[in-house]
Amino acid sequence: MTRQLHLNAFLMSTGHHEVSWRLPESDPGASTDIAHWQRLAQVAERGKLDSIFFADVPALMSSPARRPAETLDPVLLLTAIAAVTERIGLIATSSTTFNEPYNLARAFASLDQISGGRAGWNVVTTGSEDAALNFNLDALPSPEDRYRRAHEFLEATLGLWGSWDDDAVVADKQAGVYADPDKVHALDHVGEFFKVRGPLTVPRSPQGSPVIVQAGSSGPGIALAAAYAEAVFTAQTTIDDGREFYSTLKAATRKAGRDPEGIKVLPGIVTIIGSTEAEARELERQLDEFIVIEHPLAQLAESIGIPADQIDVDAPLPENIRPIEEVRSSRYELTVNLARRENLTVRQLLIRLGGGRGHRTFVGTPEQVADTIEEWFTTGASDGFNIMPAAMPSGLEAFVDHVVPILQDRGLFRREYAGSTLRDHLGLEVPAARASNRLAAAV
Amino acid sequence: MTRQLHLNAFLMSTGHHEVSWRLPESDPGASTDIAHWQRLAQVAERGKLDSIFFADVPALMSSPARRPAETLDPVLLLTAIAAVTERIGLIATSSTTFNEPYNLARAFASLDQISGGRAGWNVVTTGSEDAALNFNLDALPSPEDRYRRAHEFLEATLGLWGSWDDDAVVADKQAGVYADPDKVHALDHVGEFFKVRGPLTVPRSPQGSPVIVQAGSSGPGIALAAAYAEAVFTAQTTIDDGREFYSTLKAATRKAGRDPEGIKVLPGIVTIIGSTEAEARELERQLDEFIVIEHPLAQLAESIGIPADQIDVDAPLPENIRPIEEVRSSRYELTVNLARRENLTVRQLLIRLGGGRGHRTFVGTPEQVADTIEEWFTTGASDGFNIMPAAMPSGLEAFVDHVVPILQDRGLFRREYAGSTLRDHLGLEVPAARASNRLAAAV
Repeated sequence: MTRQLHLNAFLMSTGHHEVSWRLPESDPGASTDIAHWQRLAQVAERGKLDSIFFADVPALMSSPARRPAETLDPVLLLTAIAAVTERIGLIATSSTTFNEPYNLARAFASLDQISGGRAGWNVVTTGSEDAALNFNLDALPSPEDRYRRAHEFLEATLGLWGSWDDDAVVADKQAGVYADPDKVHALDHVGEFFKVRGPLTVPRSPQGSPVIVQAGSSGPGIALAAAYAEAVFTAQTTIDDGREFYSTLKAATRKAGRDPEGIKVLPGIVTIIGSTEAEARELERQLDEFIVIEHPLAQLAESIGIPADQIDVDAPLPENIRPIEEVRSSRYELTVNLARRENLTVRQLLIRLGGGRGHRTFVGTPEQVADTIEEWFTTGASDGFNIMPAAMPSGLEAFVDHVVPILQDRGLFRREYAGSTLRDHLGLEVPAARASNRLAAAV
Repeated sequence: MTRQLHLNAFLMSTGHHEVSWRLPESDPGASTDIAHWQRLAQVAERGKLDSIFFADVPALMSSPARRPAETLDPVLLLTAIAAVTERIGLIATSSTTFNEPYNLARAFASLDQISGGRAGWNVVTTGSEDAALNFNLDALPSPEDRYRRAHEFLEATLGLWGSWDDDAVVADKQAGVYADPDKVHALDHVGEFFKVRGPLTVPRSPQGSPVIVQAGSSGPGIALAAAYAEAVFTAQTTIDDGREFYSTLKAATRKAGRDPEGIKVLPGIVTIIGSTEAEARELERQLDEFIVIEHPLAQLAESIGIPADQIDVDAPLPENIRPIEEVRSSRYELTVNLARRENLTVRQLLIRLGGGRGHRTFVGTPEQVADTIEEWFTTGASDGFNIMPAAMPSGLEAFVDHVVPILQDRGLFRREYAGSTLRDHLGLEVPAARASNRLAAAV
């Protein structure tokens, strides 16, 4: 069989366009309506996608005036979705900065058991000051401190996930012996940030332990991914950037002593699909027109350090903004670089960001979407895609019903699930118990 | 309508008798089998019970040889159960000592949204050294420190649950305004243990916010319950003890400035039900015979501080054990007091504890079980019961199919759910937004 694409659906209440909630189809209460999320997951599963995914920040982000800002705990959302799906992988973001390893390891291991081996953890260090203020801090720790903590957090978590041997439970009713105590191991982790004795309360799942996903493309993010990640979400706006990132990450993974096949690179693609290109363009125009420019302008003004009423939205981004080196946020860097590189006016910049938060937006027919996916996949820019429909559910349905069949006809994507776990779908090995540290051992 | 009983099913994988897993009916893999838990919840819902409940300690307790020791995250278990039930309340234990308010408030608020207003949080401070060692500590904090933290944790959590006004979301598609920022409030909690800015990422649920449950019967436990709890689980072995606890707790609640009707007292009852009393006794005998005395003896030896091989199991508990005042664990106190009061041999003590961990065990026919429930309920010892079948699913089915109809025929228990939220079932008021601190305000 030819090499197969890996496709993940990045779920967002009414879609990835920030004003998709204003479309006639959109239910403004979608964020807190579990039936809505369950339906989206079922659509993705109908399309035989590898997985669904939730981003997350443990804070109420941006002004609630601007767009639906409510977010339920993503691990709970996936648990409720697990109950109404059979095969699709379930990936949630959770922060190493604002959790404890024992709680997080237990929650994901529980989701892995409940779903029959379909869980994945997107490891983030959370670059949000708002989040820090919810967790006893006065400021966000530096990237260096956050990433050092993340490495140690992963060591402790992988250790906990390997604390039960596969054959620990004997369940001998006659002898009255439930488990072999010699096969359930303390971890005794002692490090800079954590002391975790273990063992975990949860044995291994059908896929051994949850898949490790990573989504930061900064230097420390790539180092973390090379050491631990089994799938990577990334924002790459051109195919050349995509190829460079792909080869950089695979090389870093090889250098870390791991097989580069064991890490799947999935760039994000914001899709706006129409049966003709004109129809797709019209949908994009309609969405962009919904943007109330004052909303993102207020946010931009705060981040660049210039009052909103002193910014000319029809002129280029002012020169005297806060330096990238000072802010040290990958989103800020992406924003400023996009404006400068493409010489956008502030209005154009805000519309572009509103359309997909800096991810690559692709507007076109199902055939054109399939073409671009195939091109990236076959020319060294990706192992698949993180699909981010601008509007949901319609955009996800369009992808599943019209793009997926084309990819299947071209022999690039499965027609049926071959296995039942997320590791099966991604073609990843089951990590050995107690060798959960195998990933890091080679670093 | 006459005053109505409140009944909660305390779920435990194969039942509350510690060797119930050795019964022919029992599936030793039940702990990690979500279908098993979903079936138990559906049985409880068929019986129109108010709620189901999970205890929890974030550590692998006791030797895994002894009994199924795996425990999935209880909030996730309830979330998967929420997806396959409609009405029954969903109560999980979560620790104030080993969580952060923002994460816990968000998880329970998410469960409350996912379940349509059926969530309850059993607030515990976790008196387990094993748990402390999983969370960066070398020893368990003192009860004083744990309870001081618990009070502040509750203040922060209730504040977060009240951070969205009921009418905060306007969702005006025409104007492009999603929510009214003036109706989403920061909390700005600053205390001894926590700094939490807020607001929460989750708006209020159909029942406002989750029900607060408490299960500690020590002095500080009663103070916490009087200040905040809306339902209380308690272990009371005689009806006189039950009456004393009931009046003590109601008085403390009144003294705290709250309506005693707003706190429901539910003693635990371990049920062993047979169609005749002889049949019930035979089931009890069968269960007790399954106990491998060396298992609980090893645990007892460690807690009393005397090597197992120096304990005569057919003599009374030795005198030279560790003093209750030194150990300061309510379980240890209960164990020692039970042995002394009833002059039990060590073997008798261990069999009694194995049958229900110190809760009252009741062995008899459905009629006899209903009689004892009615007696406690109508003579000032309880507002209902926390039902703890010795074996599951059979014991829960026996209660639902044979005891519940008797209670219904006597007019003591609902035949149908009158409402859809846990607050509806318990007859509790919906707390006003931003007045979530109302409970504490009166303290």
